[in-house]
Amino acid sequence: MSSSPRHLKLFLFPAASGAHVAAWRHPASRDGAPDFAADRATAELAEAAGFDALFFADRLAFGGRDKASAERSSGAAGLEPLTLLAALSAVTRDIGLVATASTSYQEPFHVARSFASLDHLSGGRAGWNLVTSLTDAEAGNFGREQHFEHGERYQRAEEFVDVVKALWDSLEDDAFPRDKASGRYLDGSKVHPLEHRGRHFSVRGPLNVPRPPQGHPLVVQAGSSEEGLQLAARVADVVFTTQQELAQAQAFYRELKSRLPAFGRQPEQQLIMPGLSVIVGRSRGEAEDKLRALNELIDIDVAVSFLSALSGGTDLSAYPLDGPLPELALTNGNRSKQALFLRQAREKGLSIRQLALQVAGSGGHRVLLGTAEEVADDLQLWFESGAADGFNFKPLYLDDNLREFAEQVLPILRERGLFKREYASGTLREKLGLARPLNRFQGRS
Amino acid sequence: MSSSPRHLKLFLFPAASGAHVAAWRHPASRDGAPDFAADRATAELAEAAGFDALFFADRLAFGGRDKASAERSSGAAGLEPLTLLAALSAVTRDIGLVATASTSYQEPFHVARSFASLDHLSGGRAGWNLVTSLTDAEAGNFGREQHFEHGERYQRAEEFVDVVKALWDSLEDDAFPRDKASGRYLDGSKVHPLEHRGRHFSVRGPLNVPRPPQGHPLVVQAGSSEEGLQLAARVADVVFTTQQELAQAQAFYRELKSRLPAFGRQPEQQLIMPGLSVIVGRSRGEAEDKLRALNELIDIDVAVSFLSALSGGTDLSAYPLDGPLPELALTNGNRSKQALFLRQAREKGLSIRQLALQVAGSGGHRVLLGTAEEVADDLQLWFESGAADGFNFKPLYLDDNLREFAEQVLPILRERGLFKREYASGTLREKLGLARPLNRFQGRS
Repeated sequence: MSSSPRHLKLFLFPAASGAHVAAWRHPASRDGAPDFAADRATAELAEAAGFDALFFADRLAFGGRDKASAERSSGAAGLEPLTLLAALSAVTRDIGLVATASTSYQEPFHVARSFASLDHLSGGRAGWNLVTSLTDAEAGNFGREQHFEHGERYQRAEEFVDVVKALWDSLEDDAFPRDKASGRYLDGSKVHPLEHRGRHFSVRGPLNVPRPPQGHPLVVQAGSSEEGLQLAARVADVVFTTQQELAQAQAFYRELKSRLPAFGRQPEQQLIMPGLSVIVGRSRGEAEDKLRALNELIDIDVAVSFLSALSGGTDLSAYPLDGPLPELALTNGNRSKQALFLRQAREKGLSIRQLALQVAGSGGHRVLLGTAEEVADDLQLWFESGAADGFNFKPLYLDDNLREFAEQVLPILRERGLFKREYASGTLREKLGLARPLNRFQGRS
Repeated sequence: MSSSPRHLKLFLFPAASGAHVAAWRHPASRDGAPDFAADRATAELAEAAGFDALFFADRLAFGGRDKASAERSSGAAGLEPLTLLAALSAVTRDIGLVATASTSYQEPFHVARSFASLDHLSGGRAGWNLVTSLTDAEAGNFGREQHFEHGERYQRAEEFVDVVKALWDSLEDDAFPRDKASGRYLDGSKVHPLEHRGRHFSVRGPLNVPRPPQGHPLVVQAGSSEEGLQLAARVADVVFTTQQELAQAQAFYRELKSRLPAFGRQPEQQLIMPGLSVIVGRSRGEAEDKLRALNELIDIDVAVSFLSALSGGTDLSAYPLDGPLPELALTNGNRSKQALFLRQAREKGLSIRQLALQVAGSGGHRVLLGTAEEVADDLQLWFESGAADGFNFKPLYLDDNLREFAEQVLPILRERGLFKREYASGTLREKLGLARPLNRFQGRS
């Protein structure tokens, strides 16, 4: 059965114990300790449910903006995602494997090589979520006092991704005849050094990994600033975005897709997938009760610290908890999230406490509450009205919240013909209906 | 059953298709194409045979010193070893997983993090083979025209390994109470930023991975220059070395072990493991016939290129093939290997052709030919006469050459009480009888 563009796509974004800041305290949830058996169980559950990919975020520093919140939440430390996904590649068969890697504190050669290797190991299921990193804490682990300024880090990212893609093309698909009889291992005419000398990187090449099964592993990107949008329009196969409301999601979707033709790309060559958490109940009230029970586990100081971090680093604990959000200068952090929080707080008249609980309870993404039918209706509406090609599903805690969604919502989506009944064959790109990038040198040598 | 210091240790060094330069052409051998099912089969065979660890070399550049030899040998491209070992961690249970990573073209934070992650994923089976890299080709992939000079790269390596070990200690073993009831996730008093500002690296820390199960993943090192020996004496748990003759191996063993006390270490805290290939026959003559058949697959131009590369980069194809090895200046490459080749060629009066075939047929390591009893006698002699604590076994081709050794030689070593009958429980360090490094902060906070 081949993949249909009419099927909505689902990635699973597991995090250490879930998207909810207090997930680790939930009696049924994982506590975030390294536990490969549990990671494997989550991956197997996601694959049995038909998720298209696992998607792991990353940060290059010990977490927690301040000591108090680091001591009371689970995200400060965990496993490096590429290593984890490589291990998961050996115990899964169909699900995609998307890991985050930084264009600010990695080398293009290493990134090209690691993802090419994962693509081979997994039979073409690797994806790279390209990020520019966010914090001075990350900079400090790589010889810098401060993180690169927003504009510069996007310039680096643009050059970085071009070098990575050139490395993935530096050996043609048929460069290795490996003919035992004649002794001819490699066809040297199909090897293409880069000799790249750019503003930020100099890379001689070629890559020392045969061309990946997908040609290029999937490229995922999530920036929503002007620079982020342009980069996404130019290079992203999948865009991960924060969208809380239908009209704004539709506007974002139209805006981004409209930028693709300028880069010679068709709108259907890119999948836009907002983040989403879900709580299913037999009634909407039951779903709300479940969220309330989860929110009761939140330490308000941790939530305020979490909000401070997400909204750009201003210490909000210095302001009255039940007062309004102060004016925040846009900082060198994640500007589009800052703008979103500011707008939400203003529009709804939220206090710091209210906004903090909302953000900490969701990781900043949309939380959808309702019966399974109501949730399915909502996903269908977003999918069919040009707001989303699918969703990055962020379980609030692991694994029960994921299992409920898989067992209660996915059957309805399948019945409506909106979600696949089984995996298509082939690579992740083939399963997602995305073209395999031709090698830029193919046929020229 | 606990590990005994009287058991010799065995690591398996698989390479793409084997240590022999023409291995890929052997009808029974793997051809070196990326093939995880085959990697898994090799790992399972090694684990069933009781090998202590898998050991993967690495190079950060597309291989082949010149175009002609790159086209006719299998080592130019392959998978990144950490990614491969992470995948193998999920399908093995006891065998150690040692990957090579460069101190010249990696960042200490990334290296500390990746190996800590692999250690968690594998239940404490990770090892880091610390190398300084060798070539300008590698430098060219990371923004440099030329490789660091020998002295400077060892200075970088010394600082690099200190930072990595400090990062592995930056979170104490019991830093994470993860107490769901009280909400206390982390004990902040057990978190120790480095604030390292050194000559080559500045790293703030702490690491964002909980302390590895082994405390520090195993550290393996292979330098044999004066700088390399000092580094090995100070930090290596396992030393990989090229030794062709018993007396010289004993001298190396004595020399290195004698350097340990100056660093506060006991000689038994380090395992010295020469590289070794083996061909077993029903008679010595049959073993020699097997090697001759394998050597007939060698392209002499490839062998000369291989020798040129190993002996420092001088193009030996410019000299008469059946004449003597010219005077070679010691270059910025692998100096100790160069010295060894020069000495061998002089002592035995070898022509370029003879030396090239010998080196290409073995990757520069000792090749032992004989009946299973003769091979076992030799290993026992080296082990019991202070030449080796074990061996890095380099199959000449995969997997038959490994299988023969496992099926014919290992049973004899077991019968003689020289090799374990089953894996000890616990981490790789515990299995090898090496102490778990205490955290430098333990008990001080």
